[in-house]
Amino acid sequence: MSRPVSRRQLLGAAGAAAGGFVVGGVVGPLAAGGTGADDDPAPRADATAVAFHGAHQAGVATAPQAHVVLAGVDIAGSAAELAAVLDTWSVAAARLTAGAQVGERSPSSRLPPVDTGEADDRPPSRLTVTVAVGASAFDRSDRFGLAARRPPGLVELPAVAGDDLDPRFSGGDLCLQVGADDLQVALHAVRNLVRVAEGRASVRWSHVGTGPPPGAAPVVGDGASSHRNLLGFREGTANPRPGRPRFDDAVWVAEGDDPSWMVGGTYLALRRVDLDLGAWEELTLLDRERVIGRHRRSGAPLGDVAEDAPLELEAEGPDGRPVTDPRSHVAVAHRASQGRRPLFRRSYNVVEGIPQAEGAGAGGLLFLAFCRDPAEQFTPVLEALAAGDLLGTYQRTVASGVFAVLPGLRPGDSWSQHLFG
Amino acid sequence: MSRPVSRRQLLGAAGAAAGGFVVGGVVGPLAAGGTGADDDPAPRADATAVAFHGAHQAGVATAPQAHVVLAGVDIAGSAAELAAVLDTWSVAAARLTAGAQVGERSPSSRLPPVDTGEADDRPPSRLTVTVAVGASAFDRSDRFGLAARRPPGLVELPAVAGDDLDPRFSGGDLCLQVGADDLQVALHAVRNLVRVAEGRASVRWSHVGTGPPPGAAPVVGDGASSHRNLLGFREGTANPRPGRPRFDDAVWVAEGDDPSWMVGGTYLALRRVDLDLGAWEELTLLDRERVIGRHRRSGAPLGDVAEDAPLELEAEGPDGRPVTDPRSHVAVAHRASQGRRPLFRRSYNVVEGIPQAEGAGAGGLLFLAFCRDPAEQFTPVLEALAAGDLLGTYQRTVASGVFAVLPGLRPGDSWSQHLFG
Repeated sequence: MSRPVSRRQLLGAAGAAAGGFVVGGVVGPLAAGGTGADDDPAPRADATAVAFHGAHQAGVATAPQAHVVLAGVDIAGSAAELAAVLDTWSVAAARLTAGAQVGERSPSSRLPPVDTGEADDRPPSRLTVTVAVGASAFDRSDRFGLAARRPPGLVELPAVAGDDLDPRFSGGDLCLQVGADDLQVALHAVRNLVRVAEGRASVRWSHVGTGPPPGAAPVVGDGASSHRNLLGFREGTANPRPGRPRFDDAVWVAEGDDPSWMVGGTYLALRRVDLDLGAWEELTLLDRERVIGRHRRSGAPLGDVAEDAPLELEAEGPDGRPVTDPRSHVAVAHRASQGRRPLFRRSYNVVEGIPQAEGAGAGGLLFLAFCRDPAEQFTPVLEALAAGDLLGTYQRTVASGVFAVLPGLRPGDSWSQHLFG
Repeated sequence: MSRPVSRRQLLGAAGAAAGGFVVGGVVGPLAAGGTGADDDPAPRADATAVAFHGAHQAGVATAPQAHVVLAGVDIAGSAAELAAVLDTWSVAAARLTAGAQVGERSPSSRLPPVDTGEADDRPPSRLTVTVAVGASAFDRSDRFGLAARRPPGLVELPAVAGDDLDPRFSGGDLCLQVGADDLQVALHAVRNLVRVAEGRASVRWSHVGTGPPPGAAPVVGDGASSHRNLLGFREGTANPRPGRPRFDDAVWVAEGDDPSWMVGGTYLALRRVDLDLGAWEELTLLDRERVIGRHRRSGAPLGDVAEDAPLELEAEGPDGRPVTDPRSHVAVAHRASQGRRPLFRRSYNVVEGIPQAEGAGAGGLLFLAFCRDPAEQFTPVLEALAAGDLLGTYQRTVASGVFAVLPGLRPGDSWSQHLFG
């Protein structure tokens, strides 16, 4: 699990961790001998830096940050270009995570600075950069020579009711998930990762999402959730909690899973959902709670008081009817998940301006879930919800995809080594 | 000047401040007897609450928050509707600022909740709501009966080179400036202020901007600035500092100014600038610093080291040429401001997604400046910059406007009393 490190730990780690693979994420060297970045040589690392190196990438078990930027990225060229982008990002992401500029000083004052500079002087702000690979990188045209290596976990999601997919949001050879408690730090990171890969990488789509308050207590599941969606309900209730065996078993690809080069990785299921907030906000509180299947204020199961109280879907009220509507969002999802490993949800709200008189400006949810096996853990839940969930009336899905989140890096290694073997 | 208050101060102020006008902004009662908001009766007020009541509105002298939402709002109807919206907002903005929901519990469980609920459990996060009036509220059709009361300070800005105004961003009977260190808290406030005025108020345009890091030290001008624009340069250098006589003299409409009902208010000049970041980022560091007229890293005048060092535009280099290009942004603005009261700038960055291959996704600046007399303090600087600033090549202005920021409120008073007298 990623956790903040002090500046002293961080600077010490460059030497201490050079010898071997440190499970758990000790920060490694910023770059080979790298101290000079543009006209600002000093990394801004401090207690808000998240460890970059380790068996797993940061940004999954990391307590959700206040902001996330997701970007789908296409690679122009063949295996050499894809490998070059991953090599560049393996160094650049470590630098950015530690609070440094994206690259070292320009070799000549006649060249533009490497970094755009708008994140200078800001703390690392728990920045994480998580790199994942899309199905198109393994497709049959075999641009990258990777067709035979496609992980079985990189499934195609079925078309379901409520899908209204916008082709502008689909696909991507790579997916970047960048989170930070400071939106400018997250946007700077994405912008500069794309710039240092210029000519090889181009952005296909992006989403900007809002999460828990900046600096919120790192509460993730198995209890109170500090984050609410735009429906006003808690998001992430009953999540497995990072650091617990249930989380590791549900999220990380493990020894014995196929392929072995994905061990330590995971899969990201992404659904961008637009909400019909106008219709939702005409409902009474009681109706809203019936649709969701939990109390709005507390997140507790209906009839209960604690968010972490167990769901008892068989409970009946004085009228003999079930307290929780069997078609409620929670009931349908809960039944479909029975006997399966849980999903780990890490969703963000999407707000694109303020609704205008003409209806422009929409609100939605950037549903992000990590799991070890999407076919077992995600597809059945998706299909069950699409078939019978009361919430379906109030949402449509405009983007959908599964990406293979590569394993973490040892200092000096590159994601291209995982992907190309 | 607004400053955070403790929960104890806040709850005590309801009684203590009821008797009279407290200069400096003591928080007043949340609403007449108001304790029940939807299903969450308790205001979430804490040390991150900014005082709402006082001689001046919060959100001007308040240290800039991490996020801002600006919205232009139109009123459907006549004076009664405009007054009703201002009356509603005078109560609702006080509640939101203190961390409460926008209104009290619905009178019936058969009605939808008053508040949308997504900011529950979050701290006030230095939320400020600043209400301003646009020129259209005083126009000759005299819908609101206010034509004779138009403040002379509510000037029309001249058309200048670089204007590429988008009619979708122009005008607005009212302007809301809502700032917070938590974006979800700011968006919730705007969304709910519009909802409680439904049928009378509709959003004409909105901008979402990114400012200093959340929880940044409240440094505002007369020294180091903690905020950089997307060009990588410091924003707000040499600003007058809130709490100093130079600030009060430059910003607040004072006794003897016309009209007397604007005393304690100010004027907001808004320019939404789109930046040609692609062209900018091809420049060397030296060229960027020549265009701006300051060092990028430190914000110091060229040839100097401290951000607050005085500008000496006559200084010559060894080659006999001026160190600072007379057409640089800083030199032109500085010359045009000589002998005038300064502007107080409180600008934010605008990032609309990540630039894509096709060029979609733009970056810009939401230039916000407050002043006592726009004709004296803003128009001449605007005209000088448009005529001869090297930075003009890299920007175009898509939105422009001046709004009259109403004076602050005493507990129990309404902005409609200021406007209608």
